[in-house]
Amino acid sequence: MISKINGGGVTAALGFIAASALGDIKGKGRKTPDVAMLVSDVPCVWAGAFTKNLVKAAPVQYGMELLNRGDKLSAVVVNAGNANACTGEKGLIACHKVAAEAARLLELDINQVITASTGVIGVELPYERILNVLPEMVENLTDDGGLDFAQAIMTTDTFSKESAVMVESGGSQYVIGGACKGAGMIAPSVATMLTFVTTDVKISKELLDKALKEVIDITFNCVTVDGDTSTNDTVILMANGMSEVTVDEKGYSEFKEALGVVCDNLAKMIAKDGEGATKLVTITVKNAKNYDDARRCAYKIANSPLVKTMFAGCDPNWGRLMASAGASGAVFDPDKTDIFFNNVHYVKNGVIIDYALEKQVYEIMKNAEYDIILDLHAGQSAAKFYTCDFTSDYVKINADYRS
Amino acid sequence: MISKINGGGVTAALGFIAASALGDIKGKGRKTPDVAMLVSDVPCVWAGAFTKNLVKAAPVQYGMELLNRGDKLSAVVVNAGNANACTGEKGLIACHKVAAEAARLLELDINQVITASTGVIGVELPYERILNVLPEMVENLTDDGGLDFAQAIMTTDTFSKESAVMVESGGSQYVIGGACKGAGMIAPSVATMLTFVTTDVKISKELLDKALKEVIDITFNCVTVDGDTSTNDTVILMANGMSEVTVDEKGYSEFKEALGVVCDNLAKMIAKDGEGATKLVTITVKNAKNYDDARRCAYKIANSPLVKTMFAGCDPNWGRLMASAGASGAVFDPDKTDIFFNNVHYVKNGVIIDYALEKQVYEIMKNAEYDIILDLHAGQSAAKFYTCDFTSDYVKINADYRS
Repeated sequence: MISKINGGGVTAALGFIAASALGDIKGKGRKTPDVAMLVSDVPCVWAGAFTKNLVKAAPVQYGMELLNRGDKLSAVVVNAGNANACTGEKGLIACHKVAAEAARLLELDINQVITASTGVIGVELPYERILNVLPEMVENLTDDGGLDFAQAIMTTDTFSKESAVMVESGGSQYVIGGACKGAGMIAPSVATMLTFVTTDVKISKELLDKALKEVIDITFNCVTVDGDTSTNDTVILMANGMSEVTVDEKGYSEFKEALGVVCDNLAKMIAKDGEGATKLVTITVKNAKNYDDARRCAYKIANSPLVKTMFAGCDPNWGRLMASAGASGAVFDPDKTDIFFNNVHYVKNGVIIDYALEKQVYEIMKNAEYDIILDLHAGQSAAKFYTCDFTSDYVKINADYRS
Repeated sequence: MISKINGGGVTAALGFIAASALGDIKGKGRKTPDVAMLVSDVPCVWAGAFTKNLVKAAPVQYGMELLNRGDKLSAVVVNAGNANACTGEKGLIACHKVAAEAARLLELDINQVITASTGVIGVELPYERILNVLPEMVENLTDDGGLDFAQAIMTTDTFSKESAVMVESGGSQYVIGGACKGAGMIAPSVATMLTFVTTDVKISKELLDKALKEVIDITFNCVTVDGDTSTNDTVILMANGMSEVTVDEKGYSEFKEALGVVCDNLAKMIAKDGEGATKLVTITVKNAKNYDDARRCAYKIANSPLVKTMFAGCDPNWGRLMASAGASGAVFDPDKTDIFFNNVHYVKNGVIIDYALEKQVYEIMKNAEYDIILDLHAGQSAAKFYTCDFTSDYVKINADYRS
């Protein structure tokens, strides 16, 4: 049985502790914490997914190398305010300095520590500002530090993002919890999204890798805010085994389901908190010819500026949905396509059923969350995407992100 | 010698006449003309390019069918205010009614007339409103009606778009002139763009097709406003032979060059007049591994909301250019990439040359037009894209397009 843990995050599972500190990474007199640390009492088996952008930030390069070594992981140091991307050799040196000092303070091997960064690209990371607050964070590490962690990694996010579940089966129980930050530059292939998920199960590296890969494809890789893919995207999944519950082939499907619940919750929060966004819209394409077509079509719609501005204006302009679907590359017959807004059947066989329905659909579009379903009648595959509306505030946030 | 004809448009070439009329297609009491007609004194050899969107508006389907028949073309009737897209069988009937009545009035065969539409999708075209004004337009057809034509086809365009050139060689001369409308929903594969180009050369259908195809690829298909591809994009090129100048293999390259000048001018105007746009930015990617990579990379940058909002804010945030390039799929080494803003060398080998250059780049970005060049040092191919900034006004325009 999978049940939600209210308020749970990265420290919900046994043996995980976290803390945050004010490093003022941007050097602009910040008042709230912008550096965070997550530590496991014992070394973890871990899995990771990193941006597919050819331009990878230094901490991504650093983390990928450690993941490839196959060592266990004990700690993560995260900063907001600077992405440490496009910073050349100096960027990697900065990662190394931070990891080395954290390892020294935590009495770990340097290969048990990774770093993650988010913020402006192309500016050298003032890593001394992180080194300065490491001792204070190590001092403050606590098993209720999850919320502090989630808050410190925020950039233009308007709320912190946490989710956790408890899984009970046959008298034993384990926990999976996570935190993430999102906001702008979110698109498939995992985009400026930093996500950290922890669990206290015992699991093999192979199964953990498999679970993360399968879950990411249907959660984080189904979110789009602006179609841009960041240099820094990182999803880290750590398993420390402290619950003494073993997940093997037998418990795998339940574990994957529970991980899916946590990641789906986090992914939805990212879409909902897209820069300037006021609405979370779930685009489902069903009865597509194949999964690729379903996904391609849902993505194209979820990512269209014309569609997303129409969400902002609550305009039931279904023609834009048809136009996006048609431009997606998916193969279908426009004259057989149906469109639903929540339960309202609005378009049948490619034409509007009744202009009078506009009013009803307009009312649905005023909600903070709603669903749009396209039925292509071309096959049996389905895919969904979470997206948000595209508002003037998105432009304002991004036109002067650095000021 | 190719020379620009100031103020020239679709009626600059010999034997082309045009007119416009107020049809009030939206039925909202419009005050300026929204229906236009272009007619050649003699039937024309013609070439056309239509949207690659799977969802094709009725006039696109209608025009493609006529183009495939291979008959000569004499007249085009265009309306703004309604795209006649996603209108099913009724949409095709509307095209037929308009073409039939125009043919009757002009004493032409119905297959010598095509229609084109732009505006809202998914609403039946009130074609009677077009029929009502056809007699008046036929009455008013004149060889200085080009500007009226260009103005009547505008939707959210803020200025009319015309361009024409005269080609002189060996004592003879001919003219190529065109008009277009653009604004939102502009992206490669020709997107809500209606373009009409006329010329008085004698040319074979084969050469005309070839010239249009080659020119479109490096002009209209290198413009992006929002990455959306419309259901209605149409480029029509008509040649009536009235100059008595024959273009065959010998004159082809000069003809293509001249056609390129007209189309490039029109394409640039479309980018410059992107919905809400205040700047025209030309993105050039050079020394890419191959042409596909160059184009893919330039397109991804030109189309990134994060890049385009940075243009709006005049923020020299070059990291977003790197991130977009890296996400484009082009193969290159980020650590060898150079970036220039006009003549300012800003980034060398993937890192900023000097933070002090930010001020200079900021001054460049305040201009209404400027260039960004990425040198990938990965090969010898180049491609360029015209784009515009992404402003709050884009959102405003599109969030209540229909009100």
